[in-house]
Amino acid sequence: MSELRKDPIIGRWVIISTERGKRPMDFSMEKERKRGGFCPFCPGNEDKTPPEIFAVREKNLSPNSEGWELRVVANKFPALKIEGKLDKQGVGVYDMMSGVGAHEVIIESPNHDDTLSTLSIPRFMNVLRTYRERIVDLKKDKRFRYALVFKNHGAQAGASLEHTHSQLIALPIVPKRVAEELKGSKEHYHYKERCIYCDIIRQEIRDQVRVISENSHFIAIAPFAPKFPFETWILPKAHYSSFENTSNNLNEPLARIFSELLKKLDKVLNFSPYNFILHTSPFKESDNEFYHWHFEVMPKLTRVAGFEWGSGFYINPTPPEESAKFLRETVI
Amino acid sequence: MSELRKDPIIGRWVIISTERGKRPMDFSMEKERKRGGFCPFCPGNEDKTPPEIFAVREKNLSPNSEGWELRVVANKFPALKIEGKLDKQGVGVYDMMSGVGAHEVIIESPNHDDTLSTLSIPRFMNVLRTYRERIVDLKKDKRFRYALVFKNHGAQAGASLEHTHSQLIALPIVPKRVAEELKGSKEHYHYKERCIYCDIIRQEIRDQVRVISENSHFIAIAPFAPKFPFETWILPKAHYSSFENTSNNLNEPLARIFSELLKKLDKVLNFSPYNFILHTSPFKESDNEFYHWHFEVMPKLTRVAGFEWGSGFYINPTPPEESAKFLRETVI
Repeated sequence: MSELRKDPIIGRWVIISTERGKRPMDFSMEKERKRGGFCPFCPGNEDKTPPEIFAVREKNLSPNSEGWELRVVANKFPALKIEGKLDKQGVGVYDMMSGVGAHEVIIESPNHDDTLSTLSIPRFMNVLRTYRERIVDLKKDKRFRYALVFKNHGAQAGASLEHTHSQLIALPIVPKRVAEELKGSKEHYHYKERCIYCDIIRQEIRDQVRVISENSHFIAIAPFAPKFPFETWILPKAHYSSFENTSNNLNEPLARIFSELLKKLDKVLNFSPYNFILHTSPFKESDNEFYHWHFEVMPKLTRVAGFEWGSGFYINPTPPEESAKFLRETVI
Repeated sequence: MSELRKDPIIGRWVIISTERGKRPMDFSMEKERKRGGFCPFCPGNEDKTPPEIFAVREKNLSPNSEGWELRVVANKFPALKIEGKLDKQGVGVYDMMSGVGAHEVIIESPNHDDTLSTLSIPRFMNVLRTYRERIVDLKKDKRFRYALVFKNHGAQAGASLEHTHSQLIALPIVPKRVAEELKGSKEHYHYKERCIYCDIIRQEIRDQVRVISENSHFIAIAPFAPKFPFETWILPKAHYSSFENTSNNLNEPLARIFSELLKKLDKVLNFSPYNFILHTSPFKESDNEFYHWHFEVMPKLTRVAGFEWGSGFYINPTPPEESAKFLRETVI
């Protein structure tokens, strides 16, 4: 069974997947992993994935057969397993617990050649609605504290299968970056009685230098201090602390601004690989005044040197004012 | 001029290098950057680098000419510039300062084909002594708070020149990861009156499952909760809070354990690229009871998906007990 282990100094939890236990020789194999060929996510191959957890298909069709628009299945090689107790324990100065969690794959389209940016708005809305449905469902499991929704697009961004998909990992802990954002925004709120993200949105709308696009309910901005070139955040303009508790009416404007951003990135950056992550409030405090959910989209353009992971210090060659201008002025 | 900008939520500083301001088309060029050919770090090309800041060569030889064993020069494309005032300012909800700092390159050997792992022990000791000399010198500049010593080895680990070298960046801020470690170890110290790293070393020596090697003064361990496969830390066994204030007697045993570790990694991981970073106390509190300097060595074996940077949550397929065993049992 995998383990969740905590760094005793900075408190970051990591998954150690003892079952996949890689030996040195396995890494060179990974480098040469082939693409193309058989795709377990294509229609007709439904029996090659674990059974459906959720799907969008016409009501008269049976699960795990063709005719779907979107499927959610368990990851065949999960980082965490759904069965078991947390079994929290101390080992001298260290802390750990069992690798209990959910690891799901959202297959976003039946068409192998689609990407999220080429999906129609209704299909994009399906994807977003699915994120919400899965979070709401997993939230019922009292062992879990957080659901991490993310997408790796392109091999260089970590995708091991080409067919367009995103992932969801439900965790018994809150990931470090989210915990830091919660802490920072809580401090701001206690001091100023305002959400720091709401403050940022107000300032960005006034300044109009890092805004990429806006619609009725959402704004896409290049953040003031981005780690990576062309990093972009999408935030609801009104204060919503958690993704799953956001009004249904916002689904369409979110799909529109998100789809537009991905199309613009494709055009400006010549279809570069990218990652995105949903940052939202943890299950136990999903309704609050201080935190504001958002998507962080990070194109993979530069080699991130290990020193950046090791120091937490990033050198970004592209000022966000410039990346915002490029994206804002790009006509799709 | 570059800028240092602070993320208003989590407090991480990043360098935005406005002068290099990359446009979208520049990134594809970077991917195709060629290797081989002319090397500005080779003997005979001393005039192709900025002038020497420091060098190891026989006393009767002139600076910036051949006959050296090691040279330190300013980075030709520095992320930060040494001239100027910090000019700290707030911009609405944001904070920033000028990109003032030092960015130096330590050319570790005159031989183009050397790597740090093939250097003789006396030459390895030169490199370590140089780190110290440069830190001691830069510490005199009251604008700086921290010196980040690191190495990117191999193109996949971010090295843009093949000729073996490490880098040093002196900063007017403390990098986030180091700040987190300081905070964590301060808390441990206040609670227990002991250095947490000293506690870890005691436990690792007792357990003997994550120890890779030991000598009179140093220990190399696989940390309990490593972010990456084969991540390794080298720590002095006795409590030393800052690298530059460590007894000169420790230079040789450090060179020996470090050289041995790099040779073992070369053998086990087939000369994989790697990064290492020196974590040491900030200039203003370089003598203290709570923090313990160390090197973190991170082989670059897996593709790090953006979601890991975006969440601070890492999935590591190799348990540290296994990587330690492989390295411990490898005969070099």
